[in-house]
Amino acid sequence: MLKIGILGGGQLGRMLLQAAANYPVRTYVLENDPECPAAHLCHAFTQGDIRNFDDVYQFGRQLDGMTIEIESVNVEALEKLENEGVKIFPKPAALRIIRDKILQKQFYKQNEIPTSAFRITENRADLKNFSDFLPAVHKLAAGGYDGRGVQVLGGEKDLHLGFDQPSVLEKKVDIHKEISQIVAMNGDGQTALYPPVEMIFNQVLNQLDYQLSPAEIPQQTTWRIEAIALKVVKDLKTPGIFAVELFIDRNGDVLVNETAPRVHNSGHHTIEGNFCSQFDMLWRIMLGYPLGNPKHIVPAAMVNLVGSEGHSGEAVYEGMDEILKMENVFLHLYGKKETRPGRKMGHVTILSTDKSDRVYKAKAIKQKMRIISRQPQITV
Amino acid sequence: MLKIGILGGGQLGRMLLQAAANYPVRTYVLENDPECPAAHLCHAFTQGDIRNFDDVYQFGRQLDGMTIEIESVNVEALEKLENEGVKIFPKPAALRIIRDKILQKQFYKQNEIPTSAFRITENRADLKNFSDFLPAVHKLAAGGYDGRGVQVLGGEKDLHLGFDQPSVLEKKVDIHKEISQIVAMNGDGQTALYPPVEMIFNQVLNQLDYQLSPAEIPQQTTWRIEAIALKVVKDLKTPGIFAVELFIDRNGDVLVNETAPRVHNSGHHTIEGNFCSQFDMLWRIMLGYPLGNPKHIVPAAMVNLVGSEGHSGEAVYEGMDEILKMENVFLHLYGKKETRPGRKMGHVTILSTDKSDRVYKAKAIKQKMRIISRQPQITV
Repeated sequence: MLKIGILGGGQLGRMLLQAAANYPVRTYVLENDPECPAAHLCHAFTQGDIRNFDDVYQFGRQLDGMTIEIESVNVEALEKLENEGVKIFPKPAALRIIRDKILQKQFYKQNEIPTSAFRITENRADLKNFSDFLPAVHKLAAGGYDGRGVQVLGGEKDLHLGFDQPSVLEKKVDIHKEISQIVAMNGDGQTALYPPVEMIFNQVLNQLDYQLSPAEIPQQTTWRIEAIALKVVKDLKTPGIFAVELFIDRNGDVLVNETAPRVHNSGHHTIEGNFCSQFDMLWRIMLGYPLGNPKHIVPAAMVNLVGSEGHSGEAVYEGMDEILKMENVFLHLYGKKETRPGRKMGHVTILSTDKSDRVYKAKAIKQKMRIISRQPQITV
Repeated sequence: MLKIGILGGGQLGRMLLQAAANYPVRTYVLENDPECPAAHLCHAFTQGDIRNFDDVYQFGRQLDGMTIEIESVNVEALEKLENEGVKIFPKPAALRIIRDKILQKQFYKQNEIPTSAFRITENRADLKNFSDFLPAVHKLAAGGYDGRGVQVLGGEKDLHLGFDQPSVLEKKVDIHKEISQIVAMNGDGQTALYPPVEMIFNQVLNQLDYQLSPAEIPQQTTWRIEAIALKVVKDLKTPGIFAVELFIDRNGDVLVNETAPRVHNSGHHTIEGNFCSQFDMLWRIMLGYPLGNPKHIVPAAMVNLVGSEGHSGEAVYEGMDEILKMENVFLHLYGKKETRPGRKMGHVTILSTDKSDRVYKAKAIKQKMRIISRQPQITV
């Protein structure tokens, strides 16, 4: 049996391990928190820091293959392990590009992959030179995640909000739609494309409201998205699974926003909605099996369940019964002990051929379910 | 978080635990073999004998609820635990009836549930009194499983094949179709009925060839099956999930064959084929959530993958790639280290609205996949 390890033990690891149990594979997780969502679902859990060279190297030495749940892992250790014969999905060379937002933008430019114009800043003072480049989005080169490390700079008055570390300043796109294109590539370079996913954002809260798959876009745009996303993955030159996030702007142009070289939030609905889920697909790639069928069984919507504002502490789920009573709705809670405002605590997938049914249920779910703490408290 | 334990750690436990990871629940498994399919997927594994009073009692004392993977567990320990407040699914009183094939038959008779005529035998010599009752099927009262403990007695010449322990002699039914009706009942007595499943047997090998869901039967027969299966579950007076196995005879009459008070092989296809799988459904019942939707997303077929004849030892899977290349096909391997002839090593679910596609693929899968041992050997 092959031995495969996951760096990180959150919900992505958890869902990977649920899928792993369909195959003969021995599974390993490295993560600091022994109570993390994935810890109890692997054959062997190792407590350790995924950013620490020794922890990652010692963990990986026993394995045939490894994957990641998050980009902020120790790449040097992965490179050493790769040289010693451990297969890493994605390859460390690709991870180096992706995890640094400056390198990632340069990669798109060098490979003629359409993306918004950008400038590089070493510190906050640099921003003064680019005031005519605004409005723009300032992104920390390293360490950003889930909206952290991203700052919109609307005009000169906002320059003091910029980051004082190496960052990339991206020309603001006049966004019509945000799309995620999930792409799988195996060791032989064969690829599989999932239907593009449309992410609908709440403009007020600046967070994902819900997502729809397939996206409602013209066929021509789908082809453009597929071609661009495929080029991203092929130029990254690594097997694995990838979420290429793209903008469709008001002119109908398609621009790559960023790429995640791993299973991704925008692919959660594939567990029930598609013949081969993103998690199943990655196991097929890592275990050397044929790629699966990425097509839909039934069109889907997906809603993240996040911790309610003002609540930190032991999680309590309000409204769960109402969601579990809904037809064609699939609840996934990640078993995180503690909730925090905005923390991803679970998600719900809705299957229906009727788009209005999907949207209606997605909105109803967001209203009905609240994740609060046992002892309510105001979070500062 | 509720603490729920499973007695037994085979594939049913494995699939239960895959489903459990969608809910906030702490999971426990009791099983002799620490390398069993379910061992690594629970929060806490306990090595012990599910038939031993002390092992079961000590295991259960820490829990809020328990379920079973197999009927041959220590019922006395479960009764003591139930008295101490642990919720058992199914209740030990129902398990006592089901696990003894004599009591089970008497239960059907007392409750006027249609079933084939039967006689009780204490030993082999008793059979002589019932030679005019043949052809019949002799079933051991206790300990039979997966075809073991069952003997067809066609005529007087076969009487020496009968069992020398307490058994039930059931009048042979002239079977037209074999059906499994999965029923869920929660603590409030609410029920959910899955579409009836048709089990197609290989007459030569006397094992399940494949199963189809929904069964191809007249609506009238479906209603009859549903009414009978509901009566079985209501008369057993216990929440849980149940597979009521029934015969449709050549006259179109419906007779209960036997009932499993647990998740069952005949419900494997519900993982992908139905909105709420049998495993998900049992968690909903045990955790006190609303019942799920048992309806089909897409009609399904299911094929068991069993160890090839003549092979015992470390399992090797032949033909896996061909199956994984098929569209709309879902492979589940149970991660059992050792194969043996006829041992259930995995299953494949096929989704398709086209019945001929399902049947064609089911047959192709049975031909293409072989589970052999690394060092081939003849099993005596």
